Amino acid sequence: MRPSGRQNDQLREVSIERSFTKHAEGSVLISFGDTKVICTASVEAGVPRFMKGQGKGWVTAEYGMLPRSTGTRNNREAARGKQTGRTVEIGRLIGRSLRAAIDMEKLGEYTIVVDCDVIQADGGTRTASITGAFVALTDAINGLLAKGAIKKNPIKYSLAAISVGIWQDTPVLDLDYAEDSTAETDLNVIMTGNGGFVEIQGTAEGEPFRPEQLTAMLALAEKGVKELCAKQEQALTQAS
Amino acid sequence: MRPSGRQNDQLREVSIERSFTKHAEGSVLISFGDTKVICTASVEAGVPRFMKGQGKGWVTAEYGMLPRSTGTRNNREAARGKQTGRTVEIGRLIGRSLRAAIDMEKLGEYTIVVDCDVIQADGGTRTASITGAFVALTDAINGLLAKGAIKKNPIKYSLAAISVGIWQDTPVLDLDYAEDSTAETDLNVIMTGNGGFVEIQGTAEGEPFRPEQLTAMLALAEKGVKELCAKQEQALTQAS
Amino acid sequence: MRPSGRQNDQLREVSIERSFTKHAEGSVLISFGDTKVICTASVEAGVPRFMKGQGKGWVTAEYGMLPRSTGTRNNREAARGKQTGRTVEIGRLIGRSLRAAIDMEKLGEYTIVVDCDVIQADGGTRTASITGAFVALTDAINGLLAKGAIKKNPIKYSLAAISVGIWQDTPVLDLDYAEDSTAETDLNVIMTGNGGFVEIQGTAEGEPFRPEQLTAMLALAEKGVKELCAKQEQALTQAS
Amino acid sequence: MRPSGRQNDQLREVSIERSFTKHAEGSVLISFGDTKVICTASVEAGVPRFMKGQGKGWVTAEYGMLPRSTGTRNNREAARGKQTGRTVEIGRLIGRSLRAAIDMEKLGEYTIVVDCDVIQADGGTRTASITGAFVALTDAINGLLAKGAIKKNPIKYSLAAISVGIWQDTPVLDLDYAEDSTAETDLNVIMTGNGGFVEIQGTAEGEPFRPEQLTAMLALAEKGVKELCAKQEQALTQAS
Amino acid sequence: MRPSGRQNDQLREVSIERSFTKHAEGSVLISFGDTKVICTASVEAGVPRFMKGQGKGWVTAEYGMLPRSTGTRNNREAARGKQTGRTVEIGRLIGRSLRAAIDMEKLGEYTIVVDCDVIQADGGTRTASITGAFVALTDAINGLLAKGAIKKNPIKYSLAAISVGIWQDTPVLDLDYAEDSTAETDLNVIMTGNGGFVEIQGTAEGEPFRPEQLTAMLALAEKGVKELCAKQEQALTQAS
Amino acid sequence: MRPSGRQNDQLREVSIERSFTKHAEGSVLISFGDTKVICTASVEAGVPRFMKGQGKGWVTAEYGMLPRSTGTRNNREAARGKQTGRTVEIGRLIGRSLRAAIDMEKLGEYTIVVDCDVIQADGGTRTASITGAFVALTDAINGLLAKGAIKKNPIKYSLAAISVGIWQDTPVLDLDYAEDSTAETDLNVIMTGNGGFVEIQGTAEGEPFRPEQLTAMLALAEKGVKELCAKQEQALTQAS
Repeated sequence: MRPSGRQNDQLREVSIERSFTKHAEGSVLISFGDTKVICTASVEAGVPRFMKGQGKGWVTAEYGMLPRSTGTRNNREAARGKQTGRTVEIGRLIGRSLRAAIDMEKLGEYTIVVDCDVIQADGGTRTASITGAFVALTDAINGLLAKGAIKKNPIKYSLAAISVGIWQDTPVLDLDYAEDSTAETDLNVIMTGNGGFVEIQGTAEGEPFRPEQLTAMLALAEKGVKELCAKQEQALTQAS
Repeated sequence: MRPSGRQNDQLREVSIERSFTKHAEGSVLISFGDTKVICTASVEAGVPRFMKGQGKGWVTAEYGMLPRSTGTRNNREAARGKQTGRTVEIGRLIGRSLRAAIDMEKLGEYTIVVDCDVIQADGGTRTASITGAFVALTDAINGLLAKGAIKKNPIKYSLAAISVGIWQDTPVLDLDYAEDSTAETDLNVIMTGNGGFVEIQGTAEGEPFRPEQLTAMLALAEKGVKELCAKQEQALTQAS
Repeated sequence: MRPSGRQNDQLREVSIERSFTKHAEGSVLISFGDTKVICTASVEAGVPRFMKGQGKGWVTAEYGMLPRSTGTRNNREAARGKQTGRTVEIGRLIGRSLRAAIDMEKLGEYTIVVDCDVIQADGGTRTASITGAFVALTDAINGLLAKGAIKKNPIKYSLAAISVGIWQDTPVLDLDYAEDSTAETDLNVIMTGNGGFVEIQGTAEGEPFRPEQLTAMLALAEKGVKELCAKQEQALTQAS
Repeated sequence: MRPSGRQNDQLREVSIERSFTKHAEGSVLISFGDTKVICTASVEAGVPRFMKGQGKGWVTAEYGMLPRSTGTRNNREAARGKQTGRTVEIGRLIGRSLRAAIDMEKLGEYTIVVDCDVIQADGGTRTASITGAFVALTDAINGLLAKGAIKKNPIKYSLAAISVGIWQDTPVLDLDYAEDSTAETDLNVIMTGNGGFVEIQGTAEGEPFRPEQLTAMLALAEKGVKELCAKQEQALTQAS
Repeated sequence: MRPSGRQNDQLREVSIERSFTKHAEGSVLISFGDTKVICTASVEAGVPRFMKGQGKGWVTAEYGMLPRSTGTRNNREAARGKQTGRTVEIGRLIGRSLRAAIDMEKLGEYTIVVDCDVIQADGGTRTASITGAFVALTDAINGLLAKGAIKKNPIKYSLAAISVGIWQDTPVLDLDYAEDSTAETDLNVIMTGNGGFVEIQGTAEGEPFRPEQLTAMLALAEKGVKELCAKQEQALTQAS
Repeated sequence: MRPSGRQNDQLREVSIERSFTKHAEGSVLISFGDTKVICTASVEAGVPRFMKGQGKGWVTAEYGMLPRSTGTRNNREAARGKQTGRTVEIGRLIGRSLRAAIDMEKLGEYTIVVDCDVIQADGGTRTASITGAFVALTDAINGLLAKGAIKKNPIKYSLAAISVGIWQDTPVLDLDYAEDSTAETDLNVIMTGNGGFVEIQGTAEGEPFRPEQLTAMLALAEKGVKELCAKQEQALTQAS
């Protein structure tokens, strides 16, 4: 029995609250169990210098954790004057994943910046971030469509992310912190709603993992992402 | 009539939610109308180097705003590698104010770090931060008392903060963003529950203000702080 | 009797030397007793980006202390790669105060940067800085008027600053370092020559202060500022 | 036919030159075709603070590119005062991968820092870095064993890395720059010599990739890593 | 005739004012014509980590320019968060030169930090800095001797510095800014009072210089340094 | 006998390998004995802002050392976020020296950035860097001439650099690390092929040096530079 008492293929309780804050064009509070992330999507006219003059849009993301979102307080990155390698890496992952779901030509010369700020961490912050970010991004894009700023919907795929791992030799879905810190392997999978892989990142924390374990984990991930995409769709069809 | 439609001496709706996140020893979500701040108090054994060997404790604070807590997105300070002067200044103000309410000898060799992170800004973020921070700090201290880590309550005073200003020549209480950005004078007042001044910071945004205006603003502030202290007390007596 | 032996309402010896260095458009060495600050005003054509195209000018300020201006050497901020929070805060205060005295429309598209560098510190460096900065700024503006670069005098008010405090329960004027470090309350007051408040910043170092103490301190400050404005005027009417 | 003219499952010419520089305990120049990386392993007595007192060792890595290792010059990171996110991410990946191959208890309280500096880039710098780093690390560890500083060989597995991708819908092995910049999917695979996965990182650059494509790429990677491990072994058995 | 109207071998007016500020153990205002530098020497017990346990002392130096010490304002290095290469280079030169004059064993485990801050620049700031720094250092050392903290005088040589150059094909002594900016060659010479070279740094600004020009410049420098050492001695024998 | 066993006026083995890496317009691996430096010259159209609109070119340089180019590993400057003073100083020296050999009008509005990266250090890295940089620069300029981008050769002089020193009271040429660390005086001399001085930098490490020692060292340097210029010419006349 895994520490959380869940079935091996069972997600944590997932909730997605739209319009969580009032200023952003998209604003979502997503929870994967006790992991809670605020995802906001901010629309800005124009694109970064390296994208200028191509008639295309841009989507980027940044990630952060409140200093006491974790069991012991981490130093505030703004005060230290430097983001950790982990922070930068996750921000890049979120941005890259979101861009895979968007047709930049249809977006036109707009930049959408998605900020994912973890207010409470219990494992899986990057996958919760991506899953919530996609909803915030969708709201921001729907806003552009609604006011006629863009004509065609640039969203090519729905997108969600989940972690899977090997815990005591067993593949399990959606690891919380207690599970993650004792898992032998940790694999983050970002997929589209129709089953394509956008990004996979797997790390052997202890022993190397075997091909058959990889296959089993990917199957769990596919199941998890499908359920998450259903949650996203449900949230997006409710009035916000 | 002021923009918010409130009476000149009327606070915005204030709410104080304790135990907002699960890890911190004190965790409060405070709202002054649409201004929402997460205040967490983290207890650490030991004190900073400059306080070592005196048998005393230390309380300090840091402040931040989520990038899209405001109407237009601000660059993430951690990514820029530098806090703005305003951010540093407010963090210092919060820490200094909290220290005025605490008997460091009774606290003993513990450090309490209070983080105030604005998730939605609509004016008055520093006063909401201080008011919420005091509740989070109280919860953290009560935790130390409850487990016997300290023997005597180091809280000397209750503490709250409010902004007052001159808006169209009239003194008004608790300015929201629309009011603040058109006010002639902005005065932040931090007071103890028994009417002592801990800090006053007043700035003439347009014309210099006159002594009689200062007197009127201070009277409003005193009324506001009294009401805030009642709200704090009410929140602290409920089960969290 | 206060440590300095002065009367409670007595300023330290104040001297203001204009044209202290040769390159700056305004250059003042101001002394409040043993506190000595070089204030230079530098005129630059054009304004910062956020002010462009409005036909208005801009005044800003920076503050620094020579590493050994104090009793023990402080690390050089340029070498550490970071200004302290205190340094940034005082620079912002000086700039904000000076701007309150200037009509930016009359200044036209010029930027005046005032640098206040403490060469010897003995308490009250921020108030000496503001008082000296106003004289340097006036010289720079008079230069612009003299050569016809601007037509109308943009100076709306004269401006000076002084600290007051509660020392052993007694309100006293213009605290030196020995007094400041044992004072219970420290209040910095920036006023115009005609008695308007531009900025007040009061901090209870020990116990909170009472309204009647505030009233007494403000009265002392008003007296001090009047005397400082007279000193400024006297300096400005002498050939430099 | 892929741009390089190679078979889909064909590696570039690989060369591994040991003792490339004289100071480091392990020093390797590795080439994957035109990609050339200097990998040095530096042994230091003691471990970082967070590892102290456990009797274990530590292995870490840093990555860099000479400014003109690429087609157009990149700004020197040391001069800009900041490593890019990509640089930090690759350094972390190299270190994490190497640690998976080492038994830290057998290493004892030594730190080995591996520096991978790209002197000429033509795609696959991170996989060449890991493959060369393992050889440099082995030389450094053999030095510790030879002089009796450690008793048992802490190397658990041999380790190599290769990139695979989907280029024009076909899975191909070991992409060079021309191929990588037009590939639809890029997958970096780090494996042990006995076929365990240590890390997999796959990114859909264009369209999401399908499970069967992933399977095909992993098979290519396994073939490539086997060949690389043979090259490593061959290099290590020659006199350096 | 050189721009300054001086003889080719003529120094500018030199003045050395000791005890210029009150806190530092040595404090000198030195002027070479319109170049004015405050040099303070600060004594600290103990030595930097890399000197620990050798029973020796350490002398180091830092250099800075007030933002408006020059004809146009330079950005404040502390605000930019970075010293320029020139600033770092001059600080290192001053420290290295001073160390050449001191017997570190006799100094014992004290660190003396010399700060040279240019308040007005007109060419030759580094040579004025070194010449003034030596006087401040001497005062600090005499203080240590006077209170018995050290037993033997660690000063091995007196030390001064001067610039020489080729101006319109003629060797000239002590270039001011107008001369320096049109000189073909600029040579800074740091010498001991008894004619030894401590440091020479010559740069061809335009055409390369010939050996015979070097010889002529060195002769001028020797004359200049002798005169400066006499000025230093005269200053040091007066009551400060 | 000096530690290296060489004659007092004998250079180390010098080798110059052109086209060392493939991307740069000039790319040289230079060895002075065990000191090995990669020098690349990168041509960029346009000039820095301060040179704009003058129709002139610009040459600049940067210097770096691989972390383990030395006997013990140095922290990576990019990771520390700061170049050391020594690094900045040497980069400035290389750039200044190269500029002395180039007619910027003939170069036209091109910038050439020369990067000197030490891969193995054994004393004399700055002189090897300059000597190799000149060859890389020449290759880059020849490329511009060959494709007709510039019409006239902007190279005014050939340029090389060598260190000389006083070792056990004897002037010696081209110090390696063992010699340099025990030398009494260290003098770096940058000269043109026709015997002009471009830069001389001499430092007394121990005792001050005497004029006659300076003369002897300069004579050695002149001999060394002549030999280096011959090596450069020989390398440049071979097919690369």
